[in-house]
Amino acid sequence: MQLDTPCLVIDADRLENNIRGMADLARRHHVALRPHIKTHKSVEIARMQLAAGACGITVAKVSEAEIMVDAGIDDIFIAYPVIGPIKLERLTRLAPRCRRLIVGIDSLAGAKALDEAARAAGLKLEVRLEVDIGFARTGIAGDGALDLARAVSRMSGLDLTGIFAFKAMTLAGKPTLDLQAAGEEEGRLTVALADQIRADGIPLADVSAGSTPTAAVIAAQPGITEIRPGTYVFNDMATVGSGSCQLADCAAGVLVTVVSSNGQDRLVVDGGSKTFSTDSQPGTPPLCLEGFGRILEDGQLVFNRMTEEHGMMLVKPGAKDHQVGDQLLVIPNHICTTVNLHPQAVLIRNRSEIVRRIKIDARGCVT
Amino acid sequence: MQLDTPCLVIDADRLENNIRGMADLARRHHVALRPHIKTHKSVEIARMQLAAGACGITVAKVSEAEIMVDAGIDDIFIAYPVIGPIKLERLTRLAPRCRRLIVGIDSLAGAKALDEAARAAGLKLEVRLEVDIGFARTGIAGDGALDLARAVSRMSGLDLTGIFAFKAMTLAGKPTLDLQAAGEEEGRLTVALADQIRADGIPLADVSAGSTPTAAVIAAQPGITEIRPGTYVFNDMATVGSGSCQLADCAAGVLVTVVSSNGQDRLVVDGGSKTFSTDSQPGTPPLCLEGFGRILEDGQLVFNRMTEEHGMMLVKPGAKDHQVGDQLLVIPNHICTTVNLHPQAVLIRNRSEIVRRIKIDARGCVT
Repeated sequence: MQLDTPCLVIDADRLENNIRGMADLARRHHVALRPHIKTHKSVEIARMQLAAGACGITVAKVSEAEIMVDAGIDDIFIAYPVIGPIKLERLTRLAPRCRRLIVGIDSLAGAKALDEAARAAGLKLEVRLEVDIGFARTGIAGDGALDLARAVSRMSGLDLTGIFAFKAMTLAGKPTLDLQAAGEEEGRLTVALADQIRADGIPLADVSAGSTPTAAVIAAQPGITEIRPGTYVFNDMATVGSGSCQLADCAAGVLVTVVSSNGQDRLVVDGGSKTFSTDSQPGTPPLCLEGFGRILEDGQLVFNRMTEEHGMMLVKPGAKDHQVGDQLLVIPNHICTTVNLHPQAVLIRNRSEIVRRIKIDARGCVT
Repeated sequence: MQLDTPCLVIDADRLENNIRGMADLARRHHVALRPHIKTHKSVEIARMQLAAGACGITVAKVSEAEIMVDAGIDDIFIAYPVIGPIKLERLTRLAPRCRRLIVGIDSLAGAKALDEAARAAGLKLEVRLEVDIGFARTGIAGDGALDLARAVSRMSGLDLTGIFAFKAMTLAGKPTLDLQAAGEEEGRLTVALADQIRADGIPLADVSAGSTPTAAVIAAQPGITEIRPGTYVFNDMATVGSGSCQLADCAAGVLVTVVSSNGQDRLVVDGGSKTFSTDSQPGTPPLCLEGFGRILEDGQLVFNRMTEEHGMMLVKPGAKDHQVGDQLLVIPNHICTTVNLHPQAVLIRNRSEIVRRIKIDARGCVT
């Protein structure tokens, strides 16, 4: 396989397996699967997920939604507060082009502006309330959720149909590797909030939660109707570290070339923080990953340092004899931020057979 | 100023000042200025640097060089080992289109392949030897430099005209804030290696060193003929932290919108690690920056946590009353990796007057 590097490489068999596996898991537990496309940002892979049984997709940005709608994908959940007049205008232009468009809300101010924009455009926008169950990011916590649900249920431009949460690998607000306990807590807290709102007479159809590491646990929680994993299509060293998959489930990596060697303990490859991102720092709890990624060819190489275009690898005793010009495949710590740095990926089969190139359509969709 | 967010914003006056200031500094010290365009990746800004007096530009990637050559910029130093048959083919296609193209080398294997490619294409390629004077990245250290220079000087496809180094903010191999000592060491070690090679009868015209924090010191070192700063066009919290510029010299920031608030100690803005990068982690020596960037409107906000599309800000006592929908301008810790995430920037004057949009032409040029 002769590829110019750095090159984002996707193993087609593993990708298909991962997509099929999560779809099967959702079916088995009778929950909807609405994968987050932030990981791949690719129309082609989103279509594969839909073909395998996903009910629709999840995005974070209006610009991601626009690209997916342009490609004919028309069931989209923007799991993010859509704030500001320019974003609202884009949203109201987008909504009529979708079979189903759902928008996240977590504040009264945000809901009011959304309601106003919807009414001005003659629309009724479907919304879900984001609840904070311990991740301390977006989402409204505790009794505030019920108050906001009440207010939103009275807004004629909005149709409140569900709630959603994201808690990832945390337990009682702290990072954890106990995915069973983390997933059970996520299910219990999210469903409890949904039930509290329903008890007030507000019907909620959808109770959505779950990320890749907790998906299997979350899908089994009573009352959960939908899961939204993203990373599972590719996996990465963080999901391997979480124990939710094996190294052999990692479908995407970055092929790099050794461009320099000090002949002793250091190799330099042609990818650094503009190729891999530094999003998951080595040695950080709870995962404590060794290095910025795993070098498939040689476990005795540690990817221990990066600058923008240089990746420094520590050559440990027992490592193979790598020469300038050799290519290495790196499974990064965080594949989502890595993919976002690449204009395209190369789809391969049987380790070296090039199938075709895949465009990262929504790369750099910051808005 | 009504802009959709996140939006990379560049202050035109500050940009022009920074460009002029570095050009003046180089002139004063009679050294050539060959700025690294990795920071802005923009044809328009490269042209501004050349118009102010830069002798040419520096890039890290062949793909960056291709974009600049396509735009008519024809004096380019690829300060990076160009390794592998596909890269060499691209390079030999590019060379005849340049008035001057210089390529970095740091290994015999790399030099041999480059020599072969040059001869096969009927070219004589200008090269510079990269020396490692303590940064432990690419570059050849100690006596190996002389051996490699001797070998390269005998290669008929290559024309060895100089050496170059990068050491940044290190002293005796350790991170430092003593820029004077760091710059003096960089000058002394680089010039000593150049003199050692010259003493062997190999003429070297160019002795190139220097990054933004050390540029002023390096330019004054006897024997240095060229400086290659990059970040100075914009500056960032890292250069402010290094003491080499003031906050008022920061020309680029990211405008974000508050999308969520817990009403107490947390705001969430619409940019995370896919908008800012996490390249310069807070609290890391030697800079120990507070947070992932400085919020210009309010020093009592600490940008203390990021996920991909969420930026969490700690609201300290005494902070202003920020509401969902408010916009904030953030000066990031590392502007180079930040700019690389944005398809475009908006050039402004007088804080709010939009001049025009600037394309980040070489964004995502991984190869």
